[in-house]
Amino acid sequence: MTRTLGVALLGCGVVGSHVARLMVEQHVELGARVGVPLELRGIAVRRPGRARGVDVDAGLFTTDGEALVRRDDVDLVVEVIGGIEPARSLILAALEHGASVVTANKALLAVDGAALSEAAVKAARDLCYEASVAGAIPILRPLAESLAGDRITRVLGIVNGTTNFILDKMSTSGTGFAEALEQAQSLGYAEADPTADIEGFDAAAKAAILAGLSFHTRVTAADVYREGIADVSAGDVASAAQMGCVVKLLAICERHATPAGEAVSARVHPAMIPGDHPLASVREAYNAVFVESAAAGRLMFYGPGAGGPPTASAVLGDLVGAARNRLADVRGPAESVHAQHDVLPMGDTLTRYHIAVDVDDRAGVLAAVAQEFSRHGVSIQTVRQEGRGDDAQLVVVTHIARDADLAVTVGGLAAMDMVREVSSVMRVEAMPE
Amino acid sequence: MTRTLGVALLGCGVVGSHVARLMVEQHVELGARVGVPLELRGIAVRRPGRARGVDVDAGLFTTDGEALVRRDDVDLVVEVIGGIEPARSLILAALEHGASVVTANKALLAVDGAALSEAAVKAARDLCYEASVAGAIPILRPLAESLAGDRITRVLGIVNGTTNFILDKMSTSGTGFAEALEQAQSLGYAEADPTADIEGFDAAAKAAILAGLSFHTRVTAADVYREGIADVSAGDVASAAQMGCVVKLLAICERHATPAGEAVSARVHPAMIPGDHPLASVREAYNAVFVESAAAGRLMFYGPGAGGPPTASAVLGDLVGAARNRLADVRGPAESVHAQHDVLPMGDTLTRYHIAVDVDDRAGVLAAVAQEFSRHGVSIQTVRQEGRGDDAQLVVVTHIARDADLAVTVGGLAAMDMVREVSSVMRVEAMPE
Repeated sequence: MTRTLGVALLGCGVVGSHVARLMVEQHVELGARVGVPLELRGIAVRRPGRARGVDVDAGLFTTDGEALVRRDDVDLVVEVIGGIEPARSLILAALEHGASVVTANKALLAVDGAALSEAAVKAARDLCYEASVAGAIPILRPLAESLAGDRITRVLGIVNGTTNFILDKMSTSGTGFAEALEQAQSLGYAEADPTADIEGFDAAAKAAILAGLSFHTRVTAADVYREGIADVSAGDVASAAQMGCVVKLLAICERHATPAGEAVSARVHPAMIPGDHPLASVREAYNAVFVESAAAGRLMFYGPGAGGPPTASAVLGDLVGAARNRLADVRGPAESVHAQHDVLPMGDTLTRYHIAVDVDDRAGVLAAVAQEFSRHGVSIQTVRQEGRGDDAQLVVVTHIARDADLAVTVGGLAAMDMVREVSSVMRVEAMPE
Repeated sequence: MTRTLGVALLGCGVVGSHVARLMVEQHVELGARVGVPLELRGIAVRRPGRARGVDVDAGLFTTDGEALVRRDDVDLVVEVIGGIEPARSLILAALEHGASVVTANKALLAVDGAALSEAAVKAARDLCYEASVAGAIPILRPLAESLAGDRITRVLGIVNGTTNFILDKMSTSGTGFAEALEQAQSLGYAEADPTADIEGFDAAAKAAILAGLSFHTRVTAADVYREGIADVSAGDVASAAQMGCVVKLLAICERHATPAGEAVSARVHPAMIPGDHPLASVREAYNAVFVESAAAGRLMFYGPGAGGPPTASAVLGDLVGAARNRLADVRGPAESVHAQHDVLPMGDTLTRYHIAVDVDDRAGVLAAVAQEFSRHGVSIQTVRQEGRGDDAQLVVVTHIARDADLAVTVGGLAAMDMVREVSSVMRVEAMPE
């Protein structure tokens, strides 16, 4: 009897239905690539009766995921349910029962990656999650394996398609956030409840995963500073354009030298980046991850960051890899968290700000404002002053400083008598000092 | 006694010296990532006395590569000599003696990949060659592993930095080929004998490797159609610009449906691509590989394609991977050539041409020229006519057709009485039909 490898699929939504479809359509080819056929043993869903447009035996559907992952003829489990439970319990049960696991679950990994990873090591099985970050773009394997001999210093990622679509619309059409969000929703780029995307939760989970792999350090979602894009105004976008910049929601992972040794940081927030930076031309819902490393220099990985078929592509790549390993009775490289660097709080990271302040148009204002920056040890790179009737606007771009000092400076400016309003504050990234 | 893994380095030139340097500088970190220290056992060079700016024990240098790769304390061999011999013999000797091999040798792989790969399988050792294509850009592992569950349909690569630098210069400054080449040479982007780059031999070797991995088929340099950039004129570049295009030297690997089943092709030639294509913005000596696949869609991998440190980064990534495998006593996935698709000759591939013809400016010329296209079954997409005193220029962009039919059409045009000269012929890629 020819050996086969059995696959259990958990979830059959946008991603799962394409995983099932591609497993059927590419059955012969995938088998040739692995060495033996991959057979779908079951698909765990909540509502088995629902039509999914997938041409598989109706008898494969089950509501009992727990029983499915424990079947002796299941060698590989694909989890595309999302969320914390029941995904976590099912993954742990699968590993415990000796199956390798492929998951796209960024939220779970960013919260509980350590436990999952330990379970995989204990079971001597693979836990693969390329699909959890930036959809189809191969980025986790390159970071963990291709760049394993290099020293990654910074990762800048556009890792959420919804927010990139909205910011791109704001930038090209001049509309405000609300209108752009509505457009994204009507085109299917944003969900009815867009909180996870808009508020940066989705990007923060991905930032935790990227930082962990880049710096060989455990980083969780709780370690990631997070600001969403709901407060980005048409004025911010216009102000960025005046500097030759565009606004992007970035996941930023950095290595820092501190007096106590090396540390790392991970943060998600809107930022202005120069228009000629490779990330600036990432349009619509596309994703891209820009990596800076000591030897390789500047690399970029670009592609569709979400959607059923692209995410299924990443899942199936992991599935083929895990299947090859099962067949050879080996496992891929274990997670590398040996460095255990400290994760810096946001206040201790180094950033630079773009600050627009509406002020009274009278003598001494610029000097007083400059004094406020200086008082907090923040050095100014450029100031642009624009008259506006009887008031004026000062647009300041700082040099790099401690984020906490920059934040205190903004507070100080707001409290000044001659300052009517701090009308725009946004960090600036990837700009030459 | 703690176990260590011994590394032999073959070659200590531009790449090898950086591999040695980084192994020394990152000794602790690389050891932590692998699990045990990586120790440099010897460096084979032709002239041991030559200063290389590498801070290693002078006793490590040897001229006897054969003896070095057969040492019992050598577990991993890094080959960065380049060329066919002695690289091939040393790699085969290393594998036969039980070492895993990391190489950056595109020329050897494109000519003799099958024999090397068989030797690695027989020895149950890894043969890794990420550094052979596009320098530091992780592209081979993503193609072979991350996209192992997808169906790659086309790869378009800018995989030679020298020619990209020259074409970029021609495009931005309007200079001709000879002047741009001189500039590239004076800046160190082109060698004194630039034949391998200019004539497309380097890119063709990379195209063979890319096509093989993308289509699970053995493709050698001899299968790759090749045209260099020496005949690209300032006029061609200007003509491209008029269409909103730029000229790039592309390595193009494609999957084709033929009456006899699936086939593949690989070719290297200058081509006009639309200015808004992601590859169009790859400037100077940078490389990028654009991948189209059934599920993932459009992906791009971008970065430095050559140079000591970037290539060393790719070599060390492979070295860490191969070392992890040695430690676990496993090997990575074997080369996948199960599909064994036919490789189409250039004449049978489908392309489209941009053709500029200088003609007599008289009635009936356009009709006669159009008739010549039609006679060979080539359909015209656009014609632009420009008066030029008593003659005129017709600029034709065709629809997609068999390359052989397009070539015959050009020959037919040149033979026409009313045609004074076929002044520019270049293929057009990545343009919507």
